[in-house]
Amino acid sequence: MSDRVLEFYFEFSSPYGYIASELVEAFAAERDLTVAWKPFLIGAAFKQAGTRPLLDVPLKGPYAIHDLKRLARLHGLTVVIPEGFPIMPVAACRALIWCQKHAPDRAVDLIHAIYRYGFAAGKDFGKAPVVAEIAAGLGLDQDAVLAGTQDSEIKAALRDQVEAAIAKGVFGSPFFIFDGEPFWGVDHMELLGRWIDDDGW
Amino acid sequence: MSDRVLEFYFEFSSPYGYIASELVEAFAAERDLTVAWKPFLIGAAFKQAGTRPLLDVPLKGPYAIHDLKRLARLHGLTVVIPEGFPIMPVAACRALIWCQKHAPDRAVDLIHAIYRYGFAAGKDFGKAPVVAEIAAGLGLDQDAVLAGTQDSEIKAALRDQVEAAIAKGVFGSPFFIFDGEPFWGVDHMELLGRWIDDDGW
Repeated sequence: MSDRVLEFYFEFSSPYGYIASELVEAFAAERDLTVAWKPFLIGAAFKQAGTRPLLDVPLKGPYAIHDLKRLARLHGLTVVIPEGFPIMPVAACRALIWCQKHAPDRAVDLIHAIYRYGFAAGKDFGKAPVVAEIAAGLGLDQDAVLAGTQDSEIKAALRDQVEAAIAKGVFGSPFFIFDGEPFWGVDHMELLGRWIDDDGW
Repeated sequence: MSDRVLEFYFEFSSPYGYIASELVEAFAAERDLTVAWKPFLIGAAFKQAGTRPLLDVPLKGPYAIHDLKRLARLHGLTVVIPEGFPIMPVAACRALIWCQKHAPDRAVDLIHAIYRYGFAAGKDFGKAPVVAEIAAGLGLDQDAVLAGTQDSEIKAALRDQVEAAIAKGVFGSPFFIFDGEPFWGVDHMELLGRWIDDDGW
């Protein structure tokens, strides 16, 4: 584990977040960075910024779907907009926080499993029992995960994480911070890479 | 002039459009493309999409200013947010349409001169007499340009161009279309380049 940390903020309902989640480990490995996986809820940022879910916006929404699929193809991925989109991300976030606390070595697997359930398999992971089932598929304790999604400490921890993200200026997904420097969007990963490689400019 | 055309949609009040205007000619020359310079008014797209000027959005606005300056430095440019921002782009657009009609070989120079007056020198080009003066600095007929900004045919041509842009799905600045394929943003120019070089994917 490198002590050079790449903070990776993502929201589970974000298809661009999904694509970034599939790219970020190789990106970090190339540069000897440790990824700090930071789930957050974009709704709070939308509220503060007065913005809306991208795919709901006329003109921009249809473009985004086209762009997503094009970006995914470039990276050898497929992305589908799942049933029930936009998926409610709260249960997934809480399950992940439970996992980061109780089974931290499985947390990245859980992120991938949830994201792929939605954006590769096209299924809705918005409800806590579904998330617990996904976790069980990784060998995690299904009942404990389900209880975790209702745990008041975990609820509070998520609220704190969302507030901390917004306090750092995070407003979209994916969002990267390296050494205090913010980069928004999959389409900024090349610029971020150059920034890290060049030690800024 | 290549018959492979890169449509470059830009709005004069857009600082990202300014940066793209400084990069697009080298980008096109590398790939033997002809740039079709397409001024439009983003306000109409904002209205249809229910979105707002980027720099006005909480969280996103401060990030955008940081990102702009970082992007400009990378390309050896400076960008300043001019007095009176957001600048009214209508007079500039009409003057450009006048120029494209009456002195087409000076149109690209006029685009650069207007953009640089705003985003390099930091001055407001929102009023028609200012635009006419900028045009006069290039040897164009100041009175004819000024009259052009009030010409009903030019006004109608601008309205048509804006409608045509929206009909093509253009909603932001800069926006590129190559062979029907849309790319939004300076940060998509690398992807656009790869798309052209690879003949799609």
